[in-house]
Amino acid sequence: MDQFDPCKDVRIPFETIEGGVTAANGFRAGAMACGIKNPEVKRLDLTLIVSDTPAVTDAVFTTNKVRAGCVRVSMDHVRRETDIRAIIANSGNANACTGVQGIQDAKATAAAVAKTLGLQARQVLVCSTGIIGMQMPMQRILPNIPELSANLKDDGSDEAARAIMTSDTKPKSYAIRVPCGDGHFHVGGIAKGAGMICPNMATMLSFITTDAKVSKDELKRAVRYAVEQSFNRITIDGDTSTNDTVIVMSNGQADAPAIKRGSEDAMLFRCALHKVMLELAKMIVADGERVTKFVEIRVRNAKTHDDAKKAAEAVAKSMLVKCSWHGSDPNWGRVIHAVGYSGARIREELIDIYFGGSLACKGGLTSTTPVSELEKIVKEPKFSVTIDLNMGTANYVVYTSDLSEEYVDFNASEYSAAVHARRQQGLA
Amino acid sequence: MDQFDPCKDVRIPFETIEGGVTAANGFRAGAMACGIKNPEVKRLDLTLIVSDTPAVTDAVFTTNKVRAGCVRVSMDHVRRETDIRAIIANSGNANACTGVQGIQDAKATAAAVAKTLGLQARQVLVCSTGIIGMQMPMQRILPNIPELSANLKDDGSDEAARAIMTSDTKPKSYAIRVPCGDGHFHVGGIAKGAGMICPNMATMLSFITTDAKVSKDELKRAVRYAVEQSFNRITIDGDTSTNDTVIVMSNGQADAPAIKRGSEDAMLFRCALHKVMLELAKMIVADGERVTKFVEIRVRNAKTHDDAKKAAEAVAKSMLVKCSWHGSDPNWGRVIHAVGYSGARIREELIDIYFGGSLACKGGLTSTTPVSELEKIVKEPKFSVTIDLNMGTANYVVYTSDLSEEYVDFNASEYSAAVHARRQQGLA
Repeated sequence: MDQFDPCKDVRIPFETIEGGVTAANGFRAGAMACGIKNPEVKRLDLTLIVSDTPAVTDAVFTTNKVRAGCVRVSMDHVRRETDIRAIIANSGNANACTGVQGIQDAKATAAAVAKTLGLQARQVLVCSTGIIGMQMPMQRILPNIPELSANLKDDGSDEAARAIMTSDTKPKSYAIRVPCGDGHFHVGGIAKGAGMICPNMATMLSFITTDAKVSKDELKRAVRYAVEQSFNRITIDGDTSTNDTVIVMSNGQADAPAIKRGSEDAMLFRCALHKVMLELAKMIVADGERVTKFVEIRVRNAKTHDDAKKAAEAVAKSMLVKCSWHGSDPNWGRVIHAVGYSGARIREELIDIYFGGSLACKGGLTSTTPVSELEKIVKEPKFSVTIDLNMGTANYVVYTSDLSEEYVDFNASEYSAAVHARRQQGLA
Repeated sequence: MDQFDPCKDVRIPFETIEGGVTAANGFRAGAMACGIKNPEVKRLDLTLIVSDTPAVTDAVFTTNKVRAGCVRVSMDHVRRETDIRAIIANSGNANACTGVQGIQDAKATAAAVAKTLGLQARQVLVCSTGIIGMQMPMQRILPNIPELSANLKDDGSDEAARAIMTSDTKPKSYAIRVPCGDGHFHVGGIAKGAGMICPNMATMLSFITTDAKVSKDELKRAVRYAVEQSFNRITIDGDTSTNDTVIVMSNGQADAPAIKRGSEDAMLFRCALHKVMLELAKMIVADGERVTKFVEIRVRNAKTHDDAKKAAEAVAKSMLVKCSWHGSDPNWGRVIHAVGYSGARIREELIDIYFGGSLACKGGLTSTTPVSELEKIVKEPKFSVTIDLNMGTANYVVYTSDLSEEYVDFNASEYSAAVHARRQQGLA
């Protein structure tokens, strides 16, 4: 059995399993190809995830002040309803900047799912991802909901993961089984990311299900903790898209005992959620648009947590730093430059910078490490950059990627292309 | 005669003239090719600018906490000395992250210039731009200073502008003659920029000279005002390089009367400085690394100045927005998305976005303007994006550029290349 050691003082035993968002007991999912983006290209673009029994649910939504219609509706449902039963999600259109019509469309979608499944509309959450600024092609969504509802499967996770992909190159899915008391509980989920993730993330969606028996309050605490340690480490503060959403549903169908506040089991559950979210978050970075490098930025020995965070995020956001990684260039000067303008309290002459385990900069000056040794590390598809500020004891980690020419090319004409495609489809 | 209307209520008459940093009376400049970056490639890389008479001087330096040795030395000289007489500047090496040695090298350079010209070392300012983290090749600089000092010319501005270029593709120079009282004064300067400018600027240097008769206090006020309206509109707050420096020298050799505090002439001088800095700042953006588009971002009717600034800078910094411009894509969804996460107080349903004069987004929704009309504007090498928040009366303007594949390519291997070159030169 594997061990996960997230907080340095808590180790949880777990087993990686198949099944993603349907790994936990009592969850089913299905997906369909509705041609939401383009009716001539049939790829999975609508998915439904359902808990067969009442599910305590918490969600974290975008902090962007421009919010998609579906986000507004789902926020309202999560706030008002303790028993969420279903998530319906589409790719191909974000339903953002669509005004009152967008809200009505999201409500109509929830109502259609509720009607088919015999639920209240507020028991259904609605998520969208895709182009901003165009009304939803509802005529391609509503008529398909009965068929979608009729084909939910215990092993429908992979289809669900595919249906929420946009520029992702592969579906993202992860699940674990955790021994607890005399039994086990399961936590599993799917995610979609792409876009550059940081600093300007495209929509990030993640749907996580668990059969642990947990109260809404305990779930909330666990979700806040786990998101801060995972998805927030790849999305620079505030730079969230109009649609970002993480939803966690918990239906209590596990054979593990109920989780009591403040117990060891509560810590176990929190860490299990952290583990699943962290794996999904890392998959998002590694599959960022045209990304060729996965880089872990570690800031050590900052004066405060806030200083560590500022320094790490400035480095992770710097276009010049990202370009240098893309070229396998161990350019520590650009790293220290970003640390210098980050706002973190630093003293230049105390800063050490490592690529992998090799010292590139010692006390603000170039180290004696041969540059060929540093180049070898930065050539790898996955490496770490450690910045030791030598000012205190606070640490912070973020996960990021390089910036490639292909990224720029890829992002150069989305809107025009979409408008022209819609015109051809008679929708413009 | 042209008119410049910087503040909407002040118009200054002026005439554009040749001569750049030597346009004002009593300033001379010269440059040499010393092979600072690579002795085999002889391009101008060392320049000296001298006022023949005492010059009241003010300067603005980088806010980056990592500061080049030359910046530390020049800051000290400007603070202590009221009569600055010379600026010596090199390209090819930034003298940043070079520790105590870097400070000693900058001091030695100032001392060598002072000795040759019969000045005190603290009357000389030192500036550097180029690679970070390598010691200055002093053996290529010091021996050349006597020859450099002996060849100062009244029309040496163009050579000076060329000697401070790094990845700039052309020298940047601008000067004006302004009628004042019974006479005139001149303001002129040179600049270098390149790098992406925002958000992660490479070193920005600008040297401006004037023969206006102005006190140190009045000069300081004018410099602070003009920098805020020009260079600070292209360099996102805090994201300044280790070497950024703007120096303004004023030797009082004009035939215009002395400028009195609070007078109309004081406003005239301030606006003249603003005009020269703004032209140089725009040249820097237009010549950013591999830039193909020059874009003016105007935020209108924000609740406060701070809200307007936040919104404008978020849009100017967004990689996804910049990529869309590169592809001539009128993607207003990405613009509103950036406004949404900027931290500015907004109401999505009040936001209007224009490309040039054409409405792309009305009240947060797609406008009825044909996309072909919007595409035509974004295809131009120069256009504006106006974001009307309809929340108040505060406005803010920033100048920025697109992001091209070539930029990424260009920035992918600077450090390795420099290290290998130095090794070949026997300097590593």
